[in-house]
Amino acid sequence: MRDTRIRLCLDQPLGAGQSVLLAEAQAHYLFGVMRLTEGARLLVFNGCDGEWLAEVSEARRKRGALTCLEQVRSQQMPPDLWLIFAPVKKARTDVIVEKAVELGAARLMPVLTDYTNSERFRRDKAEAHVREAAEQCGALWLPQVEDAQPLSRLLQGWPEGRTLFWADESRAGARDSFASAPDGPAGILIGPEGGFSPAERGRLTELPFVHPVSLGPRILRAETAAIAALTLWQATHGDWR
Amino acid sequence: MRDTRIRLCLDQPLGAGQSVLLAEAQAHYLFGVMRLTEGARLLVFNGCDGEWLAEVSEARRKRGALTCLEQVRSQQMPPDLWLIFAPVKKARTDVIVEKAVELGAARLMPVLTDYTNSERFRRDKAEAHVREAAEQCGALWLPQVEDAQPLSRLLQGWPEGRTLFWADESRAGARDSFASAPDGPAGILIGPEGGFSPAERGRLTELPFVHPVSLGPRILRAETAAIAALTLWQATHGDWR
Repeated sequence: MRDTRIRLCLDQPLGAGQSVLLAEAQAHYLFGVMRLTEGARLLVFNGCDGEWLAEVSEARRKRGALTCLEQVRSQQMPPDLWLIFAPVKKARTDVIVEKAVELGAARLMPVLTDYTNSERFRRDKAEAHVREAAEQCGALWLPQVEDAQPLSRLLQGWPEGRTLFWADESRAGARDSFASAPDGPAGILIGPEGGFSPAERGRLTELPFVHPVSLGPRILRAETAAIAALTLWQATHGDWR
Repeated sequence: MRDTRIRLCLDQPLGAGQSVLLAEAQAHYLFGVMRLTEGARLLVFNGCDGEWLAEVSEARRKRGALTCLEQVRSQQMPPDLWLIFAPVKKARTDVIVEKAVELGAARLMPVLTDYTNSERFRRDKAEAHVREAAEQCGALWLPQVEDAQPLSRLLQGWPEGRTLFWADESRAGARDSFASAPDGPAGILIGPEGGFSPAERGRLTELPFVHPVSLGPRILRAETAAIAALTLWQATHGDWR
């Protein structure tokens, strides 16, 4: 029986007839937790070769193998959107990462801002979250997770032709909207709790590629702002249209 | 010093010169945790009398009193939006409740659907979450929380003239949007993990007040769908415009 409820993210190339060896944790999940046996079918993807129907060809306690049967979806690329966010408390940063995968972003870029409460950002943990979220939501790609960098450095090296949507807390009720910017490569910038410093605000206001947007009259938590901004971008410029 | 970082939701009438007795938990929070002393100032609201600057007039360990000085914001009502959702796992239901306050809704209505995993919905816990979220996000009103009811009963008694936006998972890529419905009283319906049953889908498709909307091509978790739908409604029909 084709059990499409199980969807596994792998690190190896996928192709017709391709055999894939499982890591110990994957074997434990499939055979120990999900109780799959030889011959069982599941979906696999690796972020670049599309989605494949695969069959369990070997099921041991700590190892196993799958065989790719047929491609069921061809590879899709994420919308060309970067989510730039100041790390907040761990649980809320986890939410930002999970939701960015569900809603759709190509890169997750943590930045250190003047008011960032300097919570450490664990790139490896975020990458694990990205894989889990992608398995769950049906995404075929994995957003690239970057190490945290200062906001000023990111702005300095900002690429030409990419719009930076700045969720500006002080713009409550302003008329700037996502729809009023042109389509094309984009980034979304979400501040930490407490927003941006006057110096940062001055800088952002001056930069020609920055497009300030309002997220309504109430104070949104950082992860709410990230989800709301991703949603509005997807609905106006992304793959929800 | 006016410390606007502290914002307290009270259960009593507020007015110029009005004295307000604090409950034990409130006294503990203000004087034990936040270390306020007599003469300290904070913001208070109760969901109907606007927002007031108040001063601590008595600060004891387990009790205390505030005096209302001046109204700083007049009362605002929430957008006439009901959020109707199937309870999911506790932590994710908490997220739905918190975000509905931040993003703006007038009523929170849990419904039991065919695929609802029958997690118990604790109305009292949800109400406490509503108050905390309102204190944090600057909302002046508290969404009304209802007891869980069967979806069928809610649909049967649906009021005339209110649009029900149905986040329909099967519509990925469809063209239905929030913007294509008229302004006015509204509800948003979010299903449980697993979506709606064929019988529910048939019923919803037939009802004239139901307006199906798509939330993009990926499978969103229930709380992500709730946040995304609230965002899109606010941006097209609500107080974010």
